[in-house]
Amino acid sequence: MQIAIVLYPGVTALDAIGPYEVLRMIPCSEIRFVSHNAGSIMTDSEVLVLGATHSYEQTPSPDIILVPGSAANTGMAMADKALISWLHRAHQSSQWTTSVCSGALVLAAAGILEGHSATTHWAAQDMLESLGATAQRDQRIVRSGKIITAAGVSAGIDLGLWLVGEICGRERAEVVQLLIEYDPQPPFTAGHPSKASKQVFETAKLEMFSRSQKPVQGVSV
Amino acid sequence: MQIAIVLYPGVTALDAIGPYEVLRMIPCSEIRFVSHNAGSIMTDSEVLVLGATHSYEQTPSPDIILVPGSAANTGMAMADKALISWLHRAHQSSQWTTSVCSGALVLAAAGILEGHSATTHWAAQDMLESLGATAQRDQRIVRSGKIITAAGVSAGIDLGLWLVGEICGRERAEVVQLLIEYDPQPPFTAGHPSKASKQVFETAKLEMFSRSQKPVQGVSV
Repeated sequence: MQIAIVLYPGVTALDAIGPYEVLRMIPCSEIRFVSHNAGSIMTDSEVLVLGATHSYEQTPSPDIILVPGSAANTGMAMADKALISWLHRAHQSSQWTTSVCSGALVLAAAGILEGHSATTHWAAQDMLESLGATAQRDQRIVRSGKIITAAGVSAGIDLGLWLVGEICGRERAEVVQLLIEYDPQPPFTAGHPSKASKQVFETAKLEMFSRSQKPVQGVSV
Repeated sequence: MQIAIVLYPGVTALDAIGPYEVLRMIPCSEIRFVSHNAGSIMTDSEVLVLGATHSYEQTPSPDIILVPGSAANTGMAMADKALISWLHRAHQSSQWTTSVCSGALVLAAAGILEGHSATTHWAAQDMLESLGATAQRDQRIVRSGKIITAAGVSAGIDLGLWLVGEICGRERAEVVQLLIEYDPQPPFTAGHPSKASKQVFETAKLEMFSRSQKPVQGVSV
Protein backbone atom coordinates (compact mmCIF):
# COMPACT_ATOMS: atom_id res chain seq x y z
CA MET A 1 0.00 0.00 0.00
CA GLN A 2 1.63 3.20 -1.19
CA ILE A 3 0.89 6.34 0.84
CA ALA A 4 1.72 9.71 -0.73
CA ILE A 5 1.87 12.74 1.59
CA VAL A 6 2.03 15.97 -0.40
CA LEU A 7 4.58 18.62 0.57
CA TYR A 8 4.61 22.18 -0.74
CA PRO A 9 6.35 25.37 0.42
CA GLY A 10 4.68 26.83 3.48
CA VAL A 11 2.99 23.59 4.52
CA THR A 12 2.12 23.22 8.23
CA ALA A 13 4.35 20.40 9.47
CA LEU A 14 1.99 18.82 12.03
CA ASP A 15 -0.75 18.45 9.39
CA ALA A 16 1.59 16.02 7.61
CA ILE A 17 3.56 14.49 10.49
CA GLY A 18 0.56 13.59 12.67
CA PRO A 19 -0.99 11.19 10.14
CA TYR A 20 2.44 10.08 8.87
CA GLU A 21 3.35 8.77 12.31
CA VAL A 22 0.15 6.69 12.31
CA LEU A 23 -0.20 5.58 8.68
CA ARG A 24 3.37 4.34 8.44
CA MET A 25 2.39 1.59 10.87
CA ILE A 26 0.05 0.00 8.33
CA PRO A 27 1.83 -3.31 7.65
CA CYS A 28 3.57 -3.54 4.28
CA SER A 29 2.96 0.12 3.53
CA GLU A 30 5.35 2.49 1.79
CA ILE A 31 5.26 6.14 2.83
CA ARG A 32 6.38 8.79 0.35
CA PHE A 33 6.61 12.55 0.73
CA VAL A 34 5.83 13.91 -2.74
CA SER A 35 6.38 17.29 -4.30
CA HIS A 36 7.51 18.75 -7.66
CA ASN A 37 10.85 17.11 -7.02
CA ALA A 38 12.55 15.21 -4.25
CA GLY A 39 14.41 17.57 -1.91
CA SER A 40 13.95 20.08 0.87
CA ILE A 41 10.67 21.92 1.39
CA MET A 42 10.40 24.91 3.74
CA THR A 43 7.41 24.81 6.10
CA ASP A 44 5.30 27.76 7.27
CA SER A 45 7.55 28.52 10.25
CA GLU A 46 10.35 29.38 7.79
CA VAL A 47 12.59 27.41 10.13
CA LEU A 48 11.70 23.74 9.75
CA VAL A 49 12.62 21.93 6.54
CA LEU A 50 10.99 18.60 5.58
CA GLY A 51 12.38 16.30 2.90
CA ALA A 52 10.30 15.26 -0.11
CA THR A 53 11.32 11.76 -1.19
CA HIS A 54 9.71 11.56 -4.64
CA SER A 55 8.30 13.73 -7.40
CA TYR A 56 4.64 13.68 -8.45
CA GLU A 57 5.78 12.11 -11.72
CA GLN A 58 7.43 9.22 -9.87
CA THR A 59 4.21 8.61 -7.95
CA PRO A 60 1.38 8.29 -10.49
CA SER A 61 -0.98 6.05 -8.56
CA PRO A 62 -0.66 6.00 -4.77
CA ASP A 63 -3.23 4.02 -2.78
CA ILE A 64 -3.62 6.79 -0.21
CA ILE A 65 -3.22 10.50 -0.96
CA LEU A 66 -2.91 12.93 1.94
CA VAL A 67 -2.86 16.71 1.43
CA PRO A 68 -1.84 18.78 4.47
CA GLY A 69 -2.81 22.42 4.94
CA SER A 70 -0.95 25.68 5.38
CA ALA A 71 -1.50 28.92 7.27
CA ALA A 72 -0.52 31.15 4.36
CA ASN A 73 0.31 29.12 1.27
CA THR A 74 -2.88 27.17 0.61
CA GLY A 75 -3.71 29.62 -2.19
CA MET A 76 -0.36 29.00 -3.84
CA ALA A 77 -0.93 25.24 -3.61
CA MET A 78 -4.42 25.65 -5.11
CA ALA A 79 -2.87 27.54 -8.03
CA ASP A 80 -0.05 25.03 -8.52
CA LYS A 81 -0.89 23.41 -11.86
CA ALA A 82 1.44 20.43 -11.48
CA LEU A 83 0.06 19.61 -8.02
CA ILE A 84 -3.57 20.09 -9.04
CA SER A 85 -3.36 18.01 -12.20
CA TRP A 86 -1.46 15.27 -10.34
CA LEU A 87 -4.15 15.26 -7.62
CA HIS A 88 -6.91 15.12 -10.20
CA ARG A 89 -5.31 12.12 -11.95
CA ALA A 90 -4.11 10.29 -8.83
CA HIS A 91 -7.58 10.58 -7.28
CA GLN A 92 -9.01 8.49 -10.13
CA SER A 93 -7.16 5.38 -8.95
CA SER A 94 -6.65 6.05 -5.23
CA GLN A 95 -8.27 3.91 -2.58
CA TRP A 96 -8.48 6.87 -0.22
CA THR A 97 -8.06 10.59 -0.92
CA THR A 98 -7.59 12.56 2.27
CA SER A 99 -6.76 16.00 3.61
CA VAL A 100 -5.94 17.70 6.89
CA CYS A 101 -6.82 21.32 7.71
CA SER A 102 -6.85 23.65 4.69
CA GLY A 103 -5.57 20.77 2.56
CA ALA A 104 -9.30 20.31 1.83
CA LEU A 105 -9.21 23.55 -0.18
CA VAL A 106 -6.48 22.05 -2.36
CA LEU A 107 -8.65 18.96 -2.95
CA ALA A 108 -11.51 21.32 -3.81
CA ALA A 109 -9.31 23.20 -6.27
CA ALA A 110 -8.70 19.89 -8.02
CA GLY A 111 -12.48 19.42 -8.34
CA ILE A 112 -12.45 16.50 -5.95
CA LEU A 113 -14.90 17.87 -3.35
CA GLU A 114 -17.66 19.09 -5.70
CA GLY A 115 -20.93 18.07 -4.08
CA HIS A 116 -19.19 16.22 -1.24
CA SER A 117 -19.48 16.73 2.50
CA ALA A 118 -16.12 17.75 3.93
CA THR A 119 -14.39 19.55 6.76
CA THR A 120 -11.32 21.76 7.18
CA HIS A 121 -9.78 24.17 9.72
CA TRP A 122 -12.54 26.22 11.38
CA ALA A 123 -11.15 29.40 9.80
CA ALA A 124 -11.47 27.93 6.28
CA GLN A 125 -15.01 26.53 6.41
CA ASP A 126 -16.62 29.43 4.49
CA MET A 127 -14.00 29.14 1.76
CA LEU A 128 -14.57 25.37 1.58
CA GLU A 129 -18.31 25.95 1.13
CA SER A 130 -17.67 28.54 -1.59
CA LEU A 131 -15.62 25.96 -3.49
CA GLY A 132 -18.56 23.59 -3.87
CA ALA A 133 -18.25 21.30 -0.84
CA THR A 134 -20.81 20.97 1.93
CA ALA A 135 -18.90 22.12 5.01
CA GLN A 136 -19.43 20.05 8.17
CA ARG A 137 -18.32 22.66 10.67
CA ASP A 138 -18.58 20.59 13.81
CA GLN A 139 -17.03 17.36 12.63
CA ARG A 140 -13.46 16.36 13.23
CA ILE A 141 -13.38 13.78 10.41
CA VAL A 142 -15.82 13.62 7.49
CA ARG A 143 -16.18 10.65 5.17
CA SER A 144 -17.75 10.96 1.75
CA GLY A 145 -17.12 7.75 -0.16
CA LYS A 146 -13.36 7.35 -0.42
CA ILE A 147 -12.72 10.99 0.45
CA ILE A 148 -11.80 11.67 4.08
CA THR A 149 -11.22 15.21 5.29
CA ALA A 150 -10.08 16.26 8.76
CA ALA A 151 -10.41 19.50 10.73
CA GLY A 152 -7.43 21.73 11.63
CA VAL A 153 -3.78 20.70 12.13
CA SER A 154 -3.91 18.18 15.02
CA ALA A 155 -7.01 16.44 13.58
CA GLY A 156 -4.73 14.52 11.22
CA ILE A 157 -3.83 12.14 14.05
CA ASP A 158 -7.50 11.22 14.51
CA LEU A 159 -7.87 10.85 10.73
CA GLY A 160 -4.85 8.55 10.59
CA LEU A 161 -6.15 6.28 13.35
CA TRP A 162 -9.61 6.13 11.83
CA LEU A 163 -8.07 5.15 8.49
CA VAL A 164 -5.91 2.43 10.05
CA GLY A 165 -9.10 1.08 11.63
CA GLU A 166 -10.86 0.97 8.24
CA ILE A 167 -7.92 -0.59 6.43
CA CYS A 168 -6.51 -2.99 9.03
CA GLY A 169 -9.31 -3.36 11.56
CA ARG A 170 -9.83 -2.03 15.06
CA GLU A 171 -7.18 -4.12 16.80
CA ARG A 172 -4.34 -2.85 14.62
CA ALA A 173 -5.54 0.73 15.05
CA GLU A 174 -5.54 0.27 18.83
CA VAL A 175 -1.99 -1.12 18.73
CA VAL A 176 -0.89 1.96 16.77
CA GLN A 177 -2.70 4.25 19.21
CA LEU A 178 -0.86 2.59 22.10
CA LEU A 179 2.50 2.74 20.29
CA ILE A 180 2.19 6.52 19.91
CA GLU A 181 0.61 6.74 23.40
CA TYR A 182 -2.28 8.76 22.01
CA ASP A 183 -4.20 9.29 25.23
CA PRO A 184 -4.66 13.05 24.85
CA GLN A 185 -4.99 15.17 27.98
CA PRO A 186 -5.03 18.78 26.79
CA PRO A 187 -4.43 21.05 29.78
CA PHE A 188 -7.10 23.44 28.41
CA THR A 189 -10.37 22.96 26.54
CA ALA A 190 -10.29 25.62 23.84
CA GLY A 191 -9.60 23.42 20.83
CA HIS A 192 -12.76 24.22 18.87
CA PRO A 193 -14.64 27.53 18.36
CA SER A 194 -17.64 26.05 20.17
CA LYS A 195 -15.48 25.49 23.27
CA ALA A 196 -13.25 28.59 23.31
CA SER A 197 -14.18 31.89 24.97
CA LYS A 198 -15.24 34.74 22.68
CA GLN A 199 -12.01 36.57 23.41
CA VAL A 200 -9.82 33.56 22.62
CA PHE A 201 -11.78 32.99 19.41
CA GLU A 202 -11.46 36.62 18.27
CA THR A 203 -7.71 36.66 18.98
CA ALA A 204 -7.20 33.38 17.13
CA LYS A 205 -9.26 34.64 14.17
CA LEU A 206 -7.18 37.81 13.91
CA GLU A 207 -3.98 35.77 14.15
CA MET A 208 -5.13 33.38 11.40
CA PHE A 209 -5.84 36.38 9.21
CA SER A 210 -2.48 37.94 9.91
CA ARG A 211 -0.63 34.65 9.25
CA SER A 212 -2.54 34.22 6.00
CA GLN A 213 -1.03 37.48 4.77
CA LYS A 214 2.55 36.21 4.94
CA PRO A 215 3.10 33.43 2.44
CA VAL A 216 6.39 31.57 2.55
CA GLN A 217 8.30 32.56 -0.54
CA GLY A 218 10.44 30.37 -2.74
CA VAL A 219 9.58 26.99 -4.15
CA SER A 220 12.06 24.77 -2.36
CA VAL A 221 15.28 25.31 -0.47
CA MET B 1 13.09 33.23 24.07
CA GLN B 2 15.27 30.70 22.28
CA ILE B 3 13.84 27.17 21.96
CA ALA B 4 16.23 24.37 20.97
CA ILE B 5 14.70 21.11 19.75
CA VAL B 6 17.32 18.37 19.54
CA LEU B 7 17.50 16.20 16.43
CA TYR B 8 19.53 13.01 16.11
CA PRO B 9 19.46 10.12 13.62
CA GLY B 10 16.50 7.82 14.22
CA VAL B 11 14.46 10.40 16.12
CA THR B 12 10.66 9.96 16.10
CA ALA B 13 9.34 12.93 14.13
CA LEU B 14 6.06 13.52 16.01
CA ASP B 15 7.93 13.73 19.34
CA ALA B 16 9.60 16.87 17.97
CA ILE B 17 6.95 18.28 15.62
CA GLY B 18 4.03 18.14 18.09
CA PRO B 19 5.62 20.53 20.62
CA TYR B 20 7.32 22.56 17.85
CA GLU B 21 3.93 23.44 16.35
CA VAL B 22 2.83 24.74 19.76
CA LEU B 23 5.98 26.34 21.18
CA ARG B 24 6.69 28.35 18.03
CA MET B 25 3.57 30.38 18.85
CA ILE B 26 5.18 31.83 21.96
CA PRO B 27 5.48 35.51 21.00
CA CYS B 28 9.01 36.68 20.21
CA SER B 29 10.38 33.15 20.37
CA GLU B 30 13.05 31.69 18.12
CA ILE B 31 12.81 27.97 17.32
CA ARG B 32 15.98 26.08 16.41
CA PHE B 33 16.48 22.45 15.49
CA VAL B 34 19.90 21.56 16.84
CA SER B 35 22.25 18.68 16.14
CA HIS B 36 25.99 18.07 15.64
CA ASN B 37 25.74 20.26 12.58
CA ALA B 38 23.03 22.00 10.58
CA GLY B 39 21.71 19.72 7.84
CA SER B 40 19.49 16.76 7.16
CA ILE B 41 18.70 14.18 9.85
CA MET B 42 17.04 10.85 9.02
CA THR B 43 14.15 9.91 11.31
CA ASP B 44 13.22 6.43 12.53
CA SER B 45 11.01 5.67 9.52
CA GLU B 46 14.14 5.87 7.32
CA VAL B 47 11.93 7.84 4.92
CA LEU B 48 11.34 11.25 6.48
CA VAL B 49 14.20 13.74 6.71
CA LEU B 50 14.07 16.74 9.07
CA GLY B 51 16.42 19.70 8.80
CA ALA B 52 18.64 20.77 11.70
CA THR B 53 19.14 24.54 11.59
CA HIS B 54 22.04 24.97 14.01
CA SER B 55 24.84 23.04 15.67
CA TYR B 56 25.08 22.49 19.44
CA GLU B 57 28.09 24.78 19.42
CA GLN B 58 26.06 27.61 17.88
CA THR B 59 23.41 27.18 20.59
CA PRO B 60 25.19 27.32 23.95
CA SER B 61 22.36 28.65 26.12
CA PRO B 62 18.80 28.11 24.89
CA ASP B 63 15.94 29.15 27.16
CA ILE B 64 13.99 25.96 26.44
CA ILE B 65 15.59 22.60 25.62
CA LEU B 66 13.41 19.82 24.19
CA VAL B 67 14.72 16.29 23.63
CA PRO B 68 12.47 14.01 21.55
CA GLY B 69 12.60 10.21 21.74
CA SER B 70 13.26 7.41 19.30
CA ALA B 71 12.04 3.85 18.83
CA ALA B 72 15.50 2.42 18.22
CA ASN B 73 18.18 5.06 18.54
CA THR B 74 17.73 6.36 22.08
CA GLY B 75 20.73 4.29 23.14
CA MET B 76 22.89 5.89 20.47
CA ALA B 77 21.75 9.34 21.58
CA MET B 78 22.53 8.44 25.22
CA ALA B 79 26.05 7.46 24.14
CA ASP B 80 26.57 10.56 21.99
CA LYS B 81 29.24 12.49 23.91
CA ALA B 82 28.72 15.79 22.09
CA LEU B 83 24.96 15.72 22.69
CA ILE B 84 25.28 14.65 26.33
CA SER B 85 27.89 17.22 27.25
CA TRP B 86 25.92 19.96 25.44
CA LEU B 87 22.77 18.94 27.35
CA HIS B 88 24.64 18.91 30.63
CA ARG B 89 25.99 22.43 30.05
CA ALA B 90 22.87 23.93 28.44
CA HIS B 91 20.71 22.65 31.32
CA GLN B 92 22.72 24.84 33.75
CA SER B 93 21.30 28.02 32.22
CA SER B 94 17.99 26.86 30.70
CA GLN B 95 14.66 28.13 31.96
CA TRP B 96 13.01 24.83 31.06
CA THR B 97 14.57 21.47 30.20
CA THR B 98 12.04 19.13 28.62
CA SER B 99 11.66 15.77 26.94
CA VAL B 100 9.07 13.76 25.05
CA CYS B 101 8.87 9.96 25.07
CA SER B 102 12.25 8.21 25.45
CA GLY B 103 13.93 11.62 25.25
CA ALA B 104 13.75 11.38 29.06
CA LEU B 105 16.37 8.62 28.92
CA VAL B 106 18.70 11.02 27.12
CA LEU B 107 18.16 13.63 29.85
CA ALA B 108 18.88 10.88 32.40
CA ALA B 109 22.10 9.96 30.58
CA ALA B 110 23.19 13.58 30.99
CA GLY B 111 22.62 13.26 34.76
CA ILE B 112 19.70 15.68 34.64
CA LEU B 113 17.02 13.40 36.11
CA GLU B 114 18.95 12.02 39.10
CA GLY B 115 16.47 12.03 41.99
CA HIS B 116 13.74 13.71 39.94
CA SER B 117 10.21 12.53 39.21
CA ALA B 118 9.77 12.04 35.48
CA THR B 119 7.81 10.19 32.82
CA THR B 120 8.54 8.64 29.42
CA HIS B 121 6.95 6.23 26.92
CA TRP B 122 5.23 3.38 28.80
CA ALA B 123 7.71 0.90 27.33
CA ALA B 124 10.69 2.84 28.74
CA GLN B 125 9.52 3.40 32.32
CA ASP B 126 11.63 0.59 33.84
CA MET B 127 14.72 1.89 32.08
CA LEU B 128 13.97 5.42 33.31
CA GLU B 129 13.74 4.15 36.87
CA SER B 130 17.02 2.24 36.50
CA LEU B 131 18.72 5.49 35.45
CA GLY B 132 17.97 7.19 38.76
CA ALA B 133 14.66 8.95 38.10
CA THR B 134 11.39 8.26 39.92
CA ALA B 135 9.09 7.05 37.13
CA GLN B 136 5.53 8.40 37.22
CA ARG B 137 3.94 5.69 35.09
CA ASP B 138 0.44 7.11 34.91
CA GLN B 139 1.20 10.74 34.28
CA ARG B 140 1.18 12.38 30.87
CA ILE B 141 3.33 15.34 31.93
CA VAL B 142 5.56 15.48 35.00
CA ARG B 143 7.08 18.65 36.43
CA SER B 144 10.07 18.58 38.72
CA GLY B 145 11.33 22.12 39.15
CA LYS B 146 12.28 23.36 35.69
CA ILE B 147 12.37 19.85 34.24
CA ILE B 148 9.23 18.78 32.36
CA THR B 149 8.97 15.29 30.90
CA ALA B 150 6.12 13.94 28.78
CA ALA B 151 4.87 10.42 28.06
CA GLY B 152 5.12 8.77 24.61
CA VAL B 153 5.17 10.45 21.18
CA SER B 154 1.84 12.36 21.01
CA ALA B 155 2.20 13.61 24.62
CA GLY B 156 4.53 16.34 23.34
CA ILE B 157 1.51 18.35 22.20
CA ASP B 158 0.10 18.37 25.74
CA LEU B 159 3.54 19.28 27.10
CA GLY B 160 3.81 22.18 24.62
CA LEU B 161 0.43 23.62 25.58
CA TRP B 162 1.12 23.28 29.28
CA LEU B 163 4.41 25.11 28.80
CA VAL B 164 2.81 27.94 26.81
CA GLY B 165 0.34 28.28 29.69
CA GLU B 166 3.18 28.57 32.22
CA ILE B 167 5.19 31.02 30.13
CA CYS B 168 2.48 33.19 28.56
CA GLY B 169 -0.60 32.52 30.65
CA ARG B 170 -3.75 30.54 30.06
CA GLU B 171 -5.31 32.81 27.44
CA ARG B 172 -2.36 32.58 25.08
CA ALA B 173 -2.25 28.79 25.51
CA GLU B 174 -5.95 28.59 24.65
CA VAL B 175 -5.42 30.70 21.52
CA VAL B 176 -2.65 28.31 20.45
CA GLN B 177 -4.86 25.31 21.18
CA LEU B 178 -7.59 26.80 18.98
CA LEU B 179 -5.13 27.69 16.21
CA ILE B 180 -4.03 24.05 15.96
CA GLU B 181 -7.64 22.92 16.57
CA TYR B 182 -6.50 20.59 19.32
CA ASP B 183 -9.85 19.13 20.25
CA PRO B 184 -8.78 15.48 20.15
CA GLN B 185 -11.39 12.84 19.35
CA PRO B 186 -9.48 9.56 19.09
CA PRO B 187 -11.71 6.99 17.40
CA PHE B 188 -10.47 4.35 19.87
CA THR B 189 -9.48 4.42 23.54
CA ALA B 190 -6.32 2.34 23.67
CA GLY B 191 -3.76 5.11 24.12
CA HIS B 192 -2.40 4.00 27.50
CA PRO B 193 -1.58 0.51 28.85
CA SER B 194 -4.26 0.98 31.52
CA LYS B 195 -6.88 1.46 28.78
CA ALA B 196 -5.78 -1.05 26.13
CA SER B 197 -6.85 -4.72 26.05
CA LYS B 198 -4.29 -7.29 27.14
CA GLN B 199 -3.92 -8.49 23.56
CA VAL B 200 -3.35 -4.98 22.18
CA PHE B 201 -0.83 -4.32 24.95
CA GLU B 202 1.10 -7.56 24.31
CA THR B 203 1.21 -6.91 20.55
CA ALA B 204 2.40 -3.32 21.07
CA LYS B 205 5.06 -4.47 23.56
CA LEU B 206 6.41 -7.03 21.09
CA GLU B 207 6.42 -4.44 18.33
CA MET B 208 8.29 -1.92 20.51
CA PHE B 209 10.88 -4.60 21.22
CA SER B 210 11.25 -5.49 17.57
CA ARG B 211 11.55 -1.81 16.54
CA SER B 212 14.16 -1.26 19.23
CA GLN B 213 16.35 -3.87 17.54
CA LYS B 214 16.67 -1.90 14.29
CA PRO B 215 18.58 1.31 14.88
CA VAL B 216 18.76 3.78 12.01
CA GLN B 217 22.32 3.75 10.78
CA GLY B 218 24.42 6.70 9.65
CA VAL B 219 24.85 10.00 11.40
CA SER B 220 23.18 12.38 8.96
CA VAL B 221 22.17 12.22 5.33
